[in-house]
This record gives sequence, C-alpha cells and structure tokens, in this order.
Amino acid sequence: MNFKTLESQATGTRVSLDTLIAEAKWNADGLMPAIAQCADTGDVLMMAWMNETALRETLATGQVCYWSRSRQTYWRKGESSGHRQRLHQAFLDCDGDALLLKVTQSGPACHTNRRSCFYLALNDDGGEIISTPEA
Amino acid sequence: MNFKTLESQATGTRVSLDTLIAEAKWNADGLMPAIAQCADTGDVLMMAWMNETALRETLATGQVCYWSRSRQTYWRKGESSGHRQRLHQAFLDCDGDALLLKVTQSGPACHTNRRSCFYLALNDDGGEIISTPEA
Repeated sequence: MNFKTLESQATGTRVSLDTLIAEAKWNADGLMPAIAQCADTGDVLMMAWMNETALRETLATGQVCYWSRSRQTYWRKGESSGHRQRLHQAFLDCDGDALLLKVTQSGPACHTNRRSCFYLALNDDGGEIISTPEA
Repeated sequence: MNFKTLESQATGTRVSLDTLIAEAKWNADGLMPAIAQCADTGDVLMMAWMNETALRETLATGQVCYWSRSRQTYWRKGESSGHRQRLHQAFLDCDGDALLLKVTQSGPACHTNRRSCFYLALNDDGGEIISTPEA
C-alpha cells in the first residue's frame, strides 16, 4: 500500500505505521517538515523537522520530539525551556512528505518567547513584526 | 538587519522585502516550505514549496504560486483545476526558513479532491484515512 494507492481508499481504511514510514518521502537527510498547530486555537505555532525515530518517539510518548538540523541531535521540545508540546493528534499528508501535529503548547512555542514563530507579516514591499515576546 | 537582529526589535518594526529575501534561509535548491492555512477556519490545508520568484509573485498578485519540485516549474495553484488560493496574509518565521500563508481556498486544496491534504491520522500503530473526496 503506497500513498498513490491510499488516495482512493475509503474513509476508515487503516495502514500500519511501518508501511507508512517505509513509503513516506523523507528528504536526502531522512527528514520531513512537521507543522505544529495549537489544537485549541488553530494557530500555526512553528515548523521543524522530524526523522523516523523522532516521529516514532512522538507518537509513542505523546511528547513532541524533533530533529534539530543545527545541532544534529534529537530536540525534545521544551526539555530545557519547559515549553513542551503535548501531542493531540498527528497527520501525514497525501503524498507522505509533510506532517501536521496538533499540540497543546506549554508557554511560547518560539525561542524568542513569542507564542508563534510566524511573527513577521509580509506584504509586497516588506515585513513587519506583529507580536511581542511574552514576559 | 538579519533574522537574529530582528528577534529583539519592537512590534511594528519594518524591513524591506529585498532584505528579508536576501537574509532568508532558502534550501540548497533555493526553496522554502510554505504552509497554506484556511484564513476562515484555521484548518491547515497543505504544504508546498516556494522559491524567491514564487514568493514575490504571490505577494504582488495575491494569488498563491508555488514551485513544483516534481514538475520543476511554477505552480500557480488552481490554474488547471480552478482550485485557486487567494492570499489573505503571509508570514515568515523567526529564523526565515518557513512561510505561513493564510488563504481563501476555492474548492478542495488537495489533488485527491479532499479539502485538506492532511487526511491520514496517525497513532503509534498506524494511520487511518479520515476524510472523503468532495463530489
């Protein structure tokens, strides 16, 4: 069962995690973008990256674990800051190359102490900072 | 003004689009992930990729244009399907390597005719299809 075949299956069709992970399109570094969305408000909080092990750990523990590309190690969100993400629900997209994580975020998601990382609003001549770090 | 410097600037601080595009972290192929979110419901609809030209066109025209990695060409969402995305608001994240697009989506966002591409719900033993293509 690959992602193309899955497209036409009925609602309720189930596939094993091993199959999904084998068929998913990890990039050349074995990573996939993961979008974190607040389960309560729907706000998109951040985007980071997961490898297979980080995804399996996240699904098994319910605490979100990414792969830090800058530090080249697992990044258990909030391990040092306390700003943890508890997994509410996870989704893969239609072609198996992106993850959506609905989470309960403790404290700000952004390392700048803003609630969301997406605080730079763009228009066709530039960007503007639209939120303030939490106290 | 780079992204590190921007972190500590006050709300309302503005930066030119040329500066943001020059400082942003495009990947080795000159691309950045772009998350499309329904401006009305907050549902995350899809994730695709943009290069500099696609981003500038999207901001200038208000119609979302991605870069298709599979077809290696610009992908003006809905050009053939009619399922266009009108840009409501665009955001860059704190380190300049991800985009969030709040959009008004005409018809389903997903090529499977589902409203969202994220229709495969995961848990620690597998995935389940949770939505049906629109008629």
